[in-house]
Amino acid sequence: MRIRAVREADAPAVWAIIGPIIRGGAEYALERDMSEADAIAYWYGADRETYVAEVDGEVLGTYYIRPNQPGGGRHVANCGYAVSSAARGRGIARAMCAHSLVRAREAGYRAMQFNFVIATNTRAIALWEGMGFATLARLPGAFVHPAEGEVDALVMYQRLD
Amino acid sequence: MRIRAVREADAPAVWAIIGPIIRGGAEYALERDMSEADAIAYWYGADRETYVAEVDGEVLGTYYIRPNQPGGGRHVANCGYAVSSAARGRGIARAMCAHSLVRAREAGYRAMQFNFVIATNTRAIALWEGMGFATLARLPGAFVHPAEGEVDALVMYQRLD
Repeated sequence: MRIRAVREADAPAVWAIIGPIIRGGAEYALERDMSEADAIAYWYGADRETYVAEVDGEVLGTYYIRPNQPGGGRHVANCGYAVSSAARGRGIARAMCAHSLVRAREAGYRAMQFNFVIATNTRAIALWEGMGFATLARLPGAFVHPAEGEVDALVMYQRLD
Repeated sequence: MRIRAVREADAPAVWAIIGPIIRGGAEYALERDMSEADAIAYWYGADRETYVAEVDGEVLGTYYIRPNQPGGGRHVANCGYAVSSAARGRGIARAMCAHSLVRAREAGYRAMQFNFVIATNTRAIALWEGMGFATLARLPGAFVHPAEGEVDALVMYQRLD
């Protein structure tokens, strides 16, 4: 597996990963009907660095890292990760998270925070816990899941220094 | 006191309130050097409703209300409030918060969340507690205060239904 900076030419492969997640509406608080162009503009946003994970030259995962807040909150990083539905369970999310923690320290971030981990996404929560994140808060009913209705969202955090 | 929707012509009065707060860098996680135009574009953003509080025809406070998250997080409101430094302690923030809670219920929001209340802003925290907000999390060292260095930020929340 190779993790590298995203390129313009990766946009179709990135959309093939994030499109089904956005349309599904169960993992991210994003508009389910957002256009491909808007989704790519978001994922490649000027406020963030975006990476892809390749296996045998095929893009199977992608993530971004950005300041969680501007101004006085710039020293805390925030990331979003997405893995192709066909490639789950192969350690791609774990590898991207490990990469992001290295990148965050290199970039001088002093902590990393995930603001909105959907409580039904138990595999992700277990993975983030295994990667050193603690749950700082459970936001009650913060997310309307398409199948489950209102479910909680977690604020997860780890210090990097 | 009268609270009404903001108008384009209010922009100088709004900037007179939020400008010193942004430049001070102690109350909001916003870039301290952001331009007046960028600050007004942010405060009047298309994703939010913005109001002003007038006393004897003078704009002394302003606030916005918006969805805290897109997609599955749209049922939770988020607000930002600002009061002229010359008009603090006169109940303007309290009146705007009360107005925002009414407006949130009217608009169908089911909860309100403040994501990043700086822990040194003890007057605001006491006010939000008095208005029914509970602290869901304390984000350790989440904000670099210009005088205090790293200070905590609070996630505050209340259910509306």
